[in-house]
Amino acid sequence: MKAMIIEGYGGAELLKMSILPVPQPGPGELLVKVHACGVNPVDYKIRQGLLPLGLTFPIILGYDISGVVESIGPGVESFVPGDEVFYSPELTTPGGYAEYHVVSEAIVSLKPDGLSHAEAASIPLAASTAWQALFDRACIEAGDVVLIHGAAGGVGSMAVQLANWAGCEVFATASTSNREYVEELGADVVIDYTSANFVEVVREETGGQGVDMVLDTVGGDVLARSFETLAPHGCVVSIAPENLQGASMEALRAAFFKNAELHCLFVERRRDTLDALARLLERRFIEPLVEEILPLDKVANAHGRLETMHGRGKIVLRIVEE
Amino acid sequence: MKAMIIEGYGGAELLKMSILPVPQPGPGELLVKVHACGVNPVDYKIRQGLLPLGLTFPIILGYDISGVVESIGPGVESFVPGDEVFYSPELTTPGGYAEYHVVSEAIVSLKPDGLSHAEAASIPLAASTAWQALFDRACIEAGDVVLIHGAAGGVGSMAVQLANWAGCEVFATASTSNREYVEELGADVVIDYTSANFVEVVREETGGQGVDMVLDTVGGDVLARSFETLAPHGCVVSIAPENLQGASMEALRAAFFKNAELHCLFVERRRDTLDALARLLERRFIEPLVEEILPLDKVANAHGRLETMHGRGKIVLRIVEE
Repeated sequence: MKAMIIEGYGGAELLKMSILPVPQPGPGELLVKVHACGVNPVDYKIRQGLLPLGLTFPIILGYDISGVVESIGPGVESFVPGDEVFYSPELTTPGGYAEYHVVSEAIVSLKPDGLSHAEAASIPLAASTAWQALFDRACIEAGDVVLIHGAAGGVGSMAVQLANWAGCEVFATASTSNREYVEELGADVVIDYTSANFVEVVREETGGQGVDMVLDTVGGDVLARSFETLAPHGCVVSIAPENLQGASMEALRAAFFKNAELHCLFVERRRDTLDALARLLERRFIEPLVEEILPLDKVANAHGRLETMHGRGKIVLRIVEE
Repeated sequence: MKAMIIEGYGGAELLKMSILPVPQPGPGELLVKVHACGVNPVDYKIRQGLLPLGLTFPIILGYDISGVVESIGPGVESFVPGDEVFYSPELTTPGGYAEYHVVSEAIVSLKPDGLSHAEAASIPLAASTAWQALFDRACIEAGDVVLIHGAAGGVGSMAVQLANWAGCEVFATASTSNREYVEELGADVVIDYTSANFVEVVREETGGQGVDMVLDTVGGDVLARSFETLAPHGCVVSIAPENLQGASMEALRAAFFKNAELHCLFVERRRDTLDALARLLERRFIEPLVEEILPLDKVANAHGRLETMHGRGKIVLRIVEE
């Protein structure tokens, strides 16, 4: 099968097309014909060697897959060949920059009705992260006030839609050029982080009460200052273990007198999360946000864009023409 | 009434006996004849002016009271004169270094049967903190593995007993001289922090798995290193917003790949917490730990001991002879 691989850590120029044997499904596993594969920041972070995952070369990146079950291994209970599925491969296993992919059925869900493979491949990683942050960790409810950092990004844009669906009042930070986009996603108050201090804006707009939950997609100083925006018993969920060196734990002082919580989230691949998202996608409560579709051999372009731009929506690789 | 007051922030020598009018209970309030008042570290922290509570002088300290309801204000529903009660006054209201005290009935509970007033006055603040950390925030269950820092102290000694009662495996840190004491409270593994690295001991003793919950009563570096001891989905509950300046948020990196939580706890005065503790005290599942009983006019001695020693158990002021 065709696959884009890397044989060492470094720049996007290391990505190269290769021919590899089609993998075979073991017990509890599916062989999936990959139709589309989403590209995420974690792809270039692994390519650069920034994550200590203990992988061996050649590495196939790509952690958002939509495709069709080609065959099943022994003991598979939930899927048959021909099923259209979507999922996020574990980071410790081969990814989806390839024509075929083997995955444990435990982390796979049926592709939402009405979505193309490209649309479905934009969902699993970012939307599961947003879902688990909002609902599994922060347990947000209708009427809660939430603040979402980096609201135009992959996780942030899904979080804004999900929090809006849940009936929350949504504060969101974004750059000037993404203000309108984030408003259209459902944010009630968009804070332009290039010109405004989000701590002050939240204080003013909530009459000093603060927000019930902050989703931090940035880390470092943004994480540290987020505690100042919390209401009593509020919580920060962070998905960004970056830029922490320079930030002092002194920032936590504000959290004590508020009985606040910090949840450090590393998304878990779970079928139940995907099942929930599929229902909302089918009912159009949330929308896939595909910005660009590229062929597999142009994946280096996608990496370049993710590394250098304040992007909106997702870039998806099309492996099979629909 | 007699009351020990301070008229300015500073050393223990500022504590002085004074005669003040007996306060009168307002709507929903009780007038309590104070029989015993526990002394806590928060007492000397307020005396030193370390807490930004916005208090006005003269200040009556003392946040652990056991006594008898003398009279009730309008609308009181749960108590009648003659009831024996125990509770922790809010830090923003006058404390219990006095013969009488007025309190909202909402934070008061009936004194546990079988306990003296001195014993009951050793309970509310420390044991409520331990309860809320273990059960309301960390939600520990039988079979969980917990690590309790400062296990010989007021909060730590209650936490060891409560975690033992709950069926947890209890790791505890203590100084050399308190090892045996903490073992007797119910700790399974006592780590002498003067000679051993608690991160390494936990790793060895749990076969690399880590603990489900850490109760941090120390702050700073101990808080930072505690994340390294956690099992996946574990949590740290800290009650110590101290010594944070020097600690880097880099310590949180270990928390991300474990999907860990940090709860910052500032104890809340709640009748339901005291009611739960009273049932356990009556059944002798947990024991009051009164180290010394002093008369009210010797309170400066109690402050001195708390400020300078690695104490065990509680010091209680006896206001009425039993």
